[in-house]
Amino acid sequence: MDNVYAERISALRARMASKNWDAVVISGSDPHGSEYPAPRWRQVEWLSGFTGEAGDLVITAGHAGLWTDTRYFIQAREQLIDTGVELHKTRIPGQVLIPQWLASEAFRGRNTVNIAVDGLCQSVESVSDIEKAFDEETEVRIVNVPDLLDCIWTDRPPVPETPIFELSDEDMGESSDDRIEWLRAFLRDNGCDSMLVCALDEIAWLLGVRASDIEYNPLVISYLLVTSDEVKWFVRDNYNDVFLTLNDVEGRMYVDSSQLNYHIYKMLDRGRLVCGPSPVQLRKAVKNPVEIAGMRQAHLLDGIAMEKFLFWLEAEVSSGRPVSEWDAACRIGAYRAGMEGSMGDSFETISAYGGSAALPHYVTPRVNSPMLRAEGLYLCDSGGQYVCGTTDITRTVPLGPCSGLEKEDYTLVLKGHIDLAMAVFPKGTAGCQIDALAREPLWKHLRNFGHGTGHGVGCFLCVHEGPQDIRQNFNAQPLLPGMICSDEPGIYREGMHGVRHENLLLCREEGSNEFGEWLGFEPLTFCHFDTGALLAELLTGEEIEWLNAYNARVYDTLSPLLPPEVASWLSDKTKPI
Amino acid sequence: MDNVYAERISALRARMASKNWDAVVISGSDPHGSEYPAPRWRQVEWLSGFTGEAGDLVITAGHAGLWTDTRYFIQAREQLIDTGVELHKTRIPGQVLIPQWLASEAFRGRNTVNIAVDGLCQSVESVSDIEKAFDEETEVRIVNVPDLLDCIWTDRPPVPETPIFELSDEDMGESSDDRIEWLRAFLRDNGCDSMLVCALDEIAWLLGVRASDIEYNPLVISYLLVTSDEVKWFVRDNYNDVFLTLNDVEGRMYVDSSQLNYHIYKMLDRGRLVCGPSPVQLRKAVKNPVEIAGMRQAHLLDGIAMEKFLFWLEAEVSSGRPVSEWDAACRIGAYRAGMEGSMGDSFETISAYGGSAALPHYVTPRVNSPMLRAEGLYLCDSGGQYVCGTTDITRTVPLGPCSGLEKEDYTLVLKGHIDLAMAVFPKGTAGCQIDALAREPLWKHLRNFGHGTGHGVGCFLCVHEGPQDIRQNFNAQPLLPGMICSDEPGIYREGMHGVRHENLLLCREEGSNEFGEWLGFEPLTFCHFDTGALLAELLTGEEIEWLNAYNARVYDTLSPLLPPEVASWLSDKTKPI
Repeated sequence: MDNVYAERISALRARMASKNWDAVVISGSDPHGSEYPAPRWRQVEWLSGFTGEAGDLVITAGHAGLWTDTRYFIQAREQLIDTGVELHKTRIPGQVLIPQWLASEAFRGRNTVNIAVDGLCQSVESVSDIEKAFDEETEVRIVNVPDLLDCIWTDRPPVPETPIFELSDEDMGESSDDRIEWLRAFLRDNGCDSMLVCALDEIAWLLGVRASDIEYNPLVISYLLVTSDEVKWFVRDNYNDVFLTLNDVEGRMYVDSSQLNYHIYKMLDRGRLVCGPSPVQLRKAVKNPVEIAGMRQAHLLDGIAMEKFLFWLEAEVSSGRPVSEWDAACRIGAYRAGMEGSMGDSFETISAYGGSAALPHYVTPRVNSPMLRAEGLYLCDSGGQYVCGTTDITRTVPLGPCSGLEKEDYTLVLKGHIDLAMAVFPKGTAGCQIDALAREPLWKHLRNFGHGTGHGVGCFLCVHEGPQDIRQNFNAQPLLPGMICSDEPGIYREGMHGVRHENLLLCREEGSNEFGEWLGFEPLTFCHFDTGALLAELLTGEEIEWLNAYNARVYDTLSPLLPPEVASWLSDKTKPI
Repeated sequence: MDNVYAERISALRARMASKNWDAVVISGSDPHGSEYPAPRWRQVEWLSGFTGEAGDLVITAGHAGLWTDTRYFIQAREQLIDTGVELHKTRIPGQVLIPQWLASEAFRGRNTVNIAVDGLCQSVESVSDIEKAFDEETEVRIVNVPDLLDCIWTDRPPVPETPIFELSDEDMGESSDDRIEWLRAFLRDNGCDSMLVCALDEIAWLLGVRASDIEYNPLVISYLLVTSDEVKWFVRDNYNDVFLTLNDVEGRMYVDSSQLNYHIYKMLDRGRLVCGPSPVQLRKAVKNPVEIAGMRQAHLLDGIAMEKFLFWLEAEVSSGRPVSEWDAACRIGAYRAGMEGSMGDSFETISAYGGSAALPHYVTPRVNSPMLRAEGLYLCDSGGQYVCGTTDITRTVPLGPCSGLEKEDYTLVLKGHIDLAMAVFPKGTAGCQIDALAREPLWKHLRNFGHGTGHGVGCFLCVHEGPQDIRQNFNAQPLLPGMICSDEPGIYREGMHGVRHENLLLCREEGSNEFGEWLGFEPLTFCHFDTGALLAELLTGEEIEWLNAYNARVYDTLSPLLPPEVASWLSDKTKPI
């Protein structure tokens, strides 16, 4: 055994044996349910070598398993070689999830099972699912061990502590005090005396603070307790004081149990808890006028970076100079970093050429990165953090001659993107009720994509936020004026190519009449869609009009801000079709 | 007091006083939860004079109220004059439903309230909603009095007993025994020994029997108990024996509590009940090949009747002969009645000219029926029962010159109809996920309609059936190959005009590929869409292609079966645009 991960698992098994734990369940999340955990909480990666964004581990005396979904099968299979960890596939027919596997396969018929979890990194629901999976014959004992891996992970990184800075009331469009008072009014209306906020983006939004504790997310790792007369922020040196304070909080406490970790949940007096969805999430999703102006400004800056990048890319590739996927990713990152107020990327850039782009969640390799050639399609999905807002954009561009199928896919995806962008709908409509608008042009050609069409986006916060989305899954949250959602249909063909076109859309009012009140979208993203790979005959007159108007608006808005040679190139690129 | 309804309510109040009932709640349904109850169960109408299809009454010592929705406000206001019954509006913002009204307005703060219901005609849920609406202060006593109105409604019609006939196995495509055995297998799989079926269309489908106990619905009023070795049909003379038998049924009984009446539910031993959705509903909705062939044949016959009707209508109106809405309704009914295997209409024909058509649920008056004029739009929503199937079709036709707005509405609704009819979608898609396809063309012009886009249709059964539908409300039931759904968007302008275009669509397979399995629709309805009021510039090339192909198919299929003068006229009507 000379694999480092196999050694670590072996060390964990020794501890398990000494403690009489039958199984250890390790999640890929942090104490705040963050989408991207800081290195300290990449426990799945440390123990198994798997670096995918979604994965959970179960270790027993005789088995080590990683549960992850379709997006990561190929990556997991490669990264788990020699670790002794087996891949358990999820989001496939006949999937056996961790609770069912523990109950039905690992420990069926046992009288008692001791399952250890790091309660800090486990959601309340995930633990309760395990408990519920066993029938009455088996007594399940959940052993909650905060920081369970500490004694074998000796060089475990500490809780990050990057510099914290405050946004001004002018930046936020209202003061933090206003937001706290609004929350207190909500608590009063719901008969509560306090709320414990654990979601980091909700804390950042409420307090108007930012840091860089988590890569791509400008957040401060902390807990927040809002009472009727106090705001207690558990951060840095007093981060862990939250556990002491919770015992002393009086009255009824409002919590969103989906954002509590199991360890905290177990500490709370359930008789005094009022559980419900966090009101902060919805209020934060509806941007105020200052935030909307900030998002517009961020997209202007981002559009300049994007157009410079696409100009550079075309020049490099067409002149035959060598450019790898990684080079291109670095270049767009550099253009973004050069913009005023840039605070880095909003997620890891996906820079994917040809068959690479067929993986919607492709990770561009730094070493041996595929080289771009002057043919076929190149896809770049990237975004920036700016002090005034957050961006997320995907452009797929032809680098030279394209096949008929590439052009068809390119055009159908753009058709779907445009159809959703043009949508008008009555107030009260939820994203799942208009998702089909982006898909039907693909469906008609028997093509589809396996991810959501749109996600909410924060304002100088997380690039993925709720409660709204645009996808097939039923989500009753109506789209509201001021919400921002991505519009990113795609088509992916294994080993061949991938196409995705993504703008961010601002939901806005479109007037009212005897039929009701109407909403629609304004594209926030400023970056032209390439018409070189377009089969215009697949578009309706209305779609062509939208595309020409969009490209003209991009040119009119950005050209005064671009270097002359880029502006001149853009003028050519945005000629009406 | 010389109003007959006021007198009846007064008689009921006298009985209430003698029995110490504080309130009587009367529903508009029958013991089987039927959409159209037989005269015996039109208790709301007998007591209040209100004839709308949806309405519930509450009578207290001091108040008589009718609860009904937006569709019936105008009708209710007229019909309730002098009855002393007040209108309570539902499906409007701020509505106060019956349970809330009883708890918060009528009897707030009371220690005890006695509420009498005719448990036979009250759903389990409606009674439980009343019980739940009161807080702990008030003790609610539900007094279940089957046939509560009998002692004041002395000439109440009996339970209908029309001739019963059996369908052959050839008509059904399988035998009733097969269906019963399938149901028994379902019961075994669910650990049950019996099922009580109360929904009349499920009984008719299981047994392969039909009658005319309910207008428009070829059903037999009865209950059905299926056990592992018996099929007990409670019908005609032994209809009421169901109540005696239920006490003796052994083992675990499966019931769909949404189709039980409160009286039956109270008799059942809840410890032995297994509640779940009726499996019959879903199985019945997925038509077998013989039923599909039957539905196709029914639509061929129906198309002949419709084309003869539209030919006659145009000739009459254009030649200036007087035609009223009622005359037209009679005429389409007569053409249908002349077709082979006709079993009458499948619902009450809506024959509506001009502003009449602005009411989606318009009831065409027999007396003083509005006259048709050679201008504007006429709408006819009608359907037939045939031994081989059931039809439901709406055509809106121009009777002469139309305004710009009429043409726009006509075209946009047809555009929505076509877009849904052309839809292709992956297996697993529910109707609510594609509803927007029919609406978006209207939404883009800030227009909408307040009813569902599509409902399921039975095969020589009810014209409305579940579990699938195509509407905004979340309904997770996927559309399945073999299901039939209407496609009927509309636009309604009060006092001006109404447009609705409706075909029935058969869901069918469209192949499979690396992206999944695909479904689409085949229109079952054969009747041309008039192109006279069409603004072709509002349609896409694809939509025009669909329309021309549809009209050509109608002509090719029907013309050999039509009288020469009608065929020749249809040839002209179906010319490509």
